[in-house]
Amino acid sequence: MKLASLKNNTRDGELVLVSRDLSRYVTASDIAPTLQYLLDHWQDLYPLLQARENVLRVNADGSNGNTCDSKVNTRDTKVNTDISVADFDPQRCASPLPRAYQWADGSAYVNHVELVRKARGATMPESFWSDPLMYQGGSDKFLGPCDPIVAASESWGIDLEAEVAVITDEVPMGIDASAAGKLIRLVLLVNDVSLRSLIPGELAKGFGFFQSKPSSAFSPVAVTPDELGECWDGHKLHLPLCSWVNDSLLGQPDAGVDMVFDFPTLIAHAARTRPLAAGTIIGSGTVSNRDRSVGSSCLAEVRMIETIETGAPITPFLRFGDQIRIEMLDPDGVSIFGAIVQRVLQAPGEQD
Amino acid sequence: MKLASLKNNTRDGELVLVSRDLSRYVTASDIAPTLQYLLDHWQDLYPLLQARENVLRVNADGSNGNTCDSKVNTRDTKVNTDISVADFDPQRCASPLPRAYQWADGSAYVNHVELVRKARGATMPESFWSDPLMYQGGSDKFLGPCDPIVAASESWGIDLEAEVAVITDEVPMGIDASAAGKLIRLVLLVNDVSLRSLIPGELAKGFGFFQSKPSSAFSPVAVTPDELGECWDGHKLHLPLCSWVNDSLLGQPDAGVDMVFDFPTLIAHAARTRPLAAGTIIGSGTVSNRDRSVGSSCLAEVRMIETIETGAPITPFLRFGDQIRIEMLDPDGVSIFGAIVQRVLQAPGEQD
Repeated sequence: MKLASLKNNTRDGELVLVSRDLSRYVTASDIAPTLQYLLDHWQDLYPLLQARENVLRVNADGSNGNTCDSKVNTRDTKVNTDISVADFDPQRCASPLPRAYQWADGSAYVNHVELVRKARGATMPESFWSDPLMYQGGSDKFLGPCDPIVAASESWGIDLEAEVAVITDEVPMGIDASAAGKLIRLVLLVNDVSLRSLIPGELAKGFGFFQSKPSSAFSPVAVTPDELGECWDGHKLHLPLCSWVNDSLLGQPDAGVDMVFDFPTLIAHAARTRPLAAGTIIGSGTVSNRDRSVGSSCLAEVRMIETIETGAPITPFLRFGDQIRIEMLDPDGVSIFGAIVQRVLQAPGEQD
Repeated sequence: MKLASLKNNTRDGELVLVSRDLSRYVTASDIAPTLQYLLDHWQDLYPLLQARENVLRVNADGSNGNTCDSKVNTRDTKVNTDISVADFDPQRCASPLPRAYQWADGSAYVNHVELVRKARGATMPESFWSDPLMYQGGSDKFLGPCDPIVAASESWGIDLEAEVAVITDEVPMGIDASAAGKLIRLVLLVNDVSLRSLIPGELAKGFGFFQSKPSSAFSPVAVTPDELGECWDGHKLHLPLCSWVNDSLLGQPDAGVDMVFDFPTLIAHAARTRPLAAGTIIGSGTVSNRDRSVGSSCLAEVRMIETIETGAPITPFLRFGDQIRIEMLDPDGVSIFGAIVQRVLQAPGEQD
């Protein structure tokens, strides 16, 4: 099942079901008004959504793709018996959870952590290979997948970070990793926007990121793990994650390679001293492979590799007007989550 | 206006209006089902709540306090014309926001930061007197004001931290402090539960608190600033904050004294690189005065002072069975927010 939240002038958007090929959608808001509501009532409502999916399938067979609104008469729920199927437009999407109660981002690709630390002139403790690194992110206002990244100044060192994330059900405190894996409800992509120039000063204060991690953006759709077939093994997502800056491919590292801490381990880490609410988003951290030929998922890593190889960084951070794109294709070349496509803009009234 | 969320087997509770003396309440859930909903629609709904407050006033005049449910016929809203007034019981309360989209905790009492750093063997940079320290806290599951603090082991170093906090409306990115102050909608108290033994290792990793800051608890009621009279100057709350461990007064430092960064400054700091959602909670950090005769708001500070004075800490951290209490009285000795009263319990199935 693929789920999205369409912008509708509310803070949480309208929950819709999207076809596997991302071409069509049908509302689900009569079953669950928002994705958070669905996650709050997953066991009860998920079967109703499965019935609703048939509307998309029936329509996909009979549709020529030109009609914007084709109606299918269905009796799948007691609420809505006349369901419109329409063309899916990622531009209309908010993040699947436009605001969430928790966004906790791991750093599971320790290779990336080691490179970024080097770029900051910091060393990495050996324990980072055995004890997951995780930070509490801001979750109150996420950017839609096609919303601009707005910053006051290019001097903030604006960077993308392409990641995979999962959304959990309620997680009890003290859960072990094997049980935690069973509570993964959805998988999606993230751009964990980072302001590199603000990070060193902020981390030196000792309380972690705050100003250096502005609003993140998520992929147009979040998918249930069964949509990923054999690429999802219950622990990791084994597919390349592709990132572009303008027309240049930044990298396509495999999200299943060099992930030192898998998602169940990250969830268990987050829940060690407290329970987690339904709708908790747990991120993988920037996807990064040791094989440098596959490129990177953020500019900081590119710059570090340049420093190692040439003595100085060459690639600049993002500039106003730049556009980033983050996407993952299935083995048949079909986009799984839709693309995060964001342009970097200067905040109104600001001057560099 | 005083607002609370009663537990009702939903994740967000039932919004109620509470009388000034905290003795009686009336539902507000027909106007705004939850406090988050109210904050999302503050301008439209606040006037309706003001009308509803009259029900409490009328009832307070005619009630002898013995009837549990006395009904007052009122036509204050189109929805509910027969409103029950009942006895207010803080034991039935969830935190005013049982789950929130953002909890960002400052460290405005730099005196406390300096003492706690000394206790950890760390020095404090001079910049901490001019640049606010703030961490992103977990906000997905808060404890009710009378809910137990559950931990796996006393060896975690369980501690209370008594603080004042504000809840904001929507805050635009880049706002200045004077404008930010106008967006404070509610004031309340917090117990920012801390696991002292987990902090040094976690902060050494560089990404801030995660496991060392389990679920926080908030006072039974949150109040609009006008309830605080002259004790609220738009920037700080000028009253002693009282904390007890079991029957011993831990301290009563004045929240308006030695607060280096006031609430508008903390909000502006949080909003420097991103907007903040309505319902964002901003904490003051542990209230602490330079005058040691007023005591402390957490055990870590007590232990540090003991170390300075005697060479070693004497007071233990919290033990299973201990009870903490946090409360603030107005100049007439009346509890403003109700008391946070929590017992420390061991998680089921755990053994020390």
